[in-house]
Amino acid sequence: MKQKIVCLLRLNEDEKEAYRKAAGDNEIIFNKDSNYENIRPVDEDLVKDADVIMGWIPASLLPKAKKLRWLQAQSSGVDHYMVPGLLREGAMLSSATGAYGLSVAEHMFAMMLAVMKNLPAYRDQQNAGLWQDAGMVKSPKGEDILILGTGDLGSTFAGYCKAFGAHTIGVRRDPSKPAAGIDEMHGMDELDELVKKADVVCCMLPHIEEMTHYFDYDRLMSMKKDAIYMNGGRGSICNNEDLNRVLEEGHLWGAAVDTPEQEPLPEDSALWNQKRVLLTPHIAGGDHLDDTLRKIAAIGLDNLKRYLAGEPIRNRKV
Amino acid sequence: MKQKIVCLLRLNEDEKEAYRKAAGDNEIIFNKDSNYENIRPVDEDLVKDADVIMGWIPASLLPKAKKLRWLQAQSSGVDHYMVPGLLREGAMLSSATGAYGLSVAEHMFAMMLAVMKNLPAYRDQQNAGLWQDAGMVKSPKGEDILILGTGDLGSTFAGYCKAFGAHTIGVRRDPSKPAAGIDEMHGMDELDELVKKADVVCCMLPHIEEMTHYFDYDRLMSMKKDAIYMNGGRGSICNNEDLNRVLEEGHLWGAAVDTPEQEPLPEDSALWNQKRVLLTPHIAGGDHLDDTLRKIAAIGLDNLKRYLAGEPIRNRKV
Repeated sequence: MKQKIVCLLRLNEDEKEAYRKAAGDNEIIFNKDSNYENIRPVDEDLVKDADVIMGWIPASLLPKAKKLRWLQAQSSGVDHYMVPGLLREGAMLSSATGAYGLSVAEHMFAMMLAVMKNLPAYRDQQNAGLWQDAGMVKSPKGEDILILGTGDLGSTFAGYCKAFGAHTIGVRRDPSKPAAGIDEMHGMDELDELVKKADVVCCMLPHIEEMTHYFDYDRLMSMKKDAIYMNGGRGSICNNEDLNRVLEEGHLWGAAVDTPEQEPLPEDSALWNQKRVLLTPHIAGGDHLDDTLRKIAAIGLDNLKRYLAGEPIRNRKV
Repeated sequence: MKQKIVCLLRLNEDEKEAYRKAAGDNEIIFNKDSNYENIRPVDEDLVKDADVIMGWIPASLLPKAKKLRWLQAQSSGVDHYMVPGLLREGAMLSSATGAYGLSVAEHMFAMMLAVMKNLPAYRDQQNAGLWQDAGMVKSPKGEDILILGTGDLGSTFAGYCKAFGAHTIGVRRDPSKPAAGIDEMHGMDELDELVKKADVVCCMLPHIEEMTHYFDYDRLMSMKKDAIYMNGGRGSICNNEDLNRVLEEGHLWGAAVDTPEQEPLPEDSALWNQKRVLLTPHIAGGDHLDDTLRKIAAIGLDNLKRYLAGEPIRNRKV
């Protein structure tokens, strides 16, 4: 029986052609053209009789997909789709894990270098018309960079740090498993001590309930006075108000945050005006890089072929 | 006969001790303490009977040093000391070439990544309290990065580009001489064509008379529409007004400039408010990085020993 495949991924013309070919006799609908314009709204009409959905749909719309057999997400994290009652019982869910390593790692490294070189202060001075020396800078060379989360994202980030002469330290549940780019791997039980010695702490973790507010006032104060705190994973690991307070008190060199605790960052958050924080609106891992789009397209195509051939799909979460 | 050595370098206590030991019976005066506070002004009184000056002095003060035998500059470029009539006839001049590669290369790479990742726009949005996606970004991966000036600075910069997966292209007078980090070396006669094809053009050249305003309106328009222009060398190579005009007309992805044509950048320059330019006040190669200070100190100490032993000094320019 013919299946209906609703593809919401951002594909170029070559990729669309490959998807059509893979779909064979099945119906495949592309929601967006290659210029990223919506063709039709992502609403109940579009998904109600879909057998397969590929790409981003609001989690709230998922219960309307009553015939759904498989959802190929375009994100790496798929927690939002795994809330009970959303996904049709028996349907499969797969993620786009592996597509975002380059994008997130490059973005977080760009933020780290920017904070080390005082670029946020220089941008503010440029806007104020000031030609003024902002003082000493930092270098990654010889620094101890502690990376929480040593999967695709953290490992790629670590490789860049090493290319700049840094020493990279990773933590994971099973420290006997190495990761590319990590010079020293430790267990989670050593984390408290490692945080105190690091020159940079970069969080790249998914939401972990027991790590909520691990970085509170005392923990951030336990870091070296001129260390840098960074977060490109989930924001729940750090208490935003504590981070602001610690910076206000003159502790830490600065911070780089793509993922604050609440998103969007609340209007009244003091972090907006905290000059030693560089803030981006959770875009490190978005689909802003051509490389990411092409990797998502490749993961989707491979899984579509597997699905239609009755083979096990990759990155399966449910 | 005892010589008088005036040392204006930023030394730490260990380095000062090593300089004192090297000076032996000669008189050595340190102008600055290790916390970078002035002890005494750099004026005629300080330099008039100096046999040796090490570190930065204003070029205008040089004619007052009537006994000078050797000036060890703390900068890489020493053109400003080579104007006829400044340096006492017969005196030697040496530079601190080799101390700035890491600092300049890291800063320029930080600026390049910042521009690629829209960080200046995100900083502006942070200051305005806006949580907003600034659109597509760029990656160094797979880009053709053209580097003008392939000495210590350009070569170190090229190495970082390669670590991020870029292809590096260098130009120099004698293209048969390779340079670390450069994938392809070309002669200056090919420059016009190379500029048209590059994704990033990074200038790291000293002032070269015949290259003045090489990057004018037409040249900048000959670059790819979404290319990035960067300058960390001397500013005379680019016409500031033309750079602004080209960006106003929507050409180029953006620009990163540490060394505009005039320094400080004139108050009425349109570049201050050109949002797609990231501007820093000629601080890439300053003494803002501990690594730079230590390298300058080492070059100075080595040359001091050579000088007092009657051996040829290194980095000699006059």
